[in-house]
Amino acid sequence: MSGRCAACKYLRRRCPSDCILSPYFPSSDPQRFTSVNRIYGASNVAKMLQELIMPHLRAEAAETLRYEAQCRIQDLIYGCIGVISQLYINKYKIYTECRLAKTRAEIALMNSDGQEPPQAQVDQQI
Amino acid sequence: MSGRCAACKYLRRRCPSDCILSPYFPSSDPQRFTSVNRIYGASNVAKMLQELIMPHLRAEAAETLRYEAQCRIQDLIYGCIGVISQLYINKYKIYTECRLAKTRAEIALMNSDGQEPPQAQVDQQI
Repeated sequence: MSGRCAACKYLRRRCPSDCILSPYFPSSDPQRFTSVNRIYGASNVAKMLQELIMPHLRAEAAETLRYEAQCRIQDLIYGCIGVISQLYINKYKIYTECRLAKTRAEIALMNSDGQEPPQAQVDQQI
Repeated sequence: MSGRCAACKYLRRRCPSDCILSPYFPSSDPQRFTSVNRIYGASNVAKMLQELIMPHLRAEAAETLRYEAQCRIQDLIYGCIGVISQLYINKYKIYTECRLAKTRAEIALMNSDGQEPPQAQVDQQI
């Protein structure tokens, strides 16, 4: 029974040579399997990996499932969506800050030319 | 057997009055349950909702689980991580575009003052 992957070890079963979970959930990192098993269940993870034929795509899928499971364990309500929301907020913040810096530079340029900045337009832009 | 939620209807079981899935997976929207059941399995979804006591937190969790499941069905390899990656790329793109616009405004301002723009610094900034 030695040489079993983390999934087969956890599920106390024999690890067949063609085990779908074995390459992505090695016994050296049991936490990796525990996370996905808690959120998706071993059979759902196996099913999702089965649907992908290419091994490198399975590896990518196993990694994103692990990341999503980890996010969900850390934040049971929002999971990955918490990260997405934060990125949307950051995106808007960066956009607004850059827009403000650009508008300030434009005002400075107008002032140096002796022009009056178009106040209403500037306010609207910010 | 009428009045069952989408989950109990799908699983062909009686829908108890205290069914944990019932408020979040109404029979009027069977696709909502089908998505989360395909990715997480009904029992895992029920377990996750059980861990949250407040009904409004359960509603939020059910919604984010549905969104994540939908993302995974559409993109079996990357799921939500595909959305996160795209947001990171967009964030960097917006940051770079705004930085470029700001630098161009600064160069224009320096030119109007008769100053030479610090070329090396500008190139580095972009």
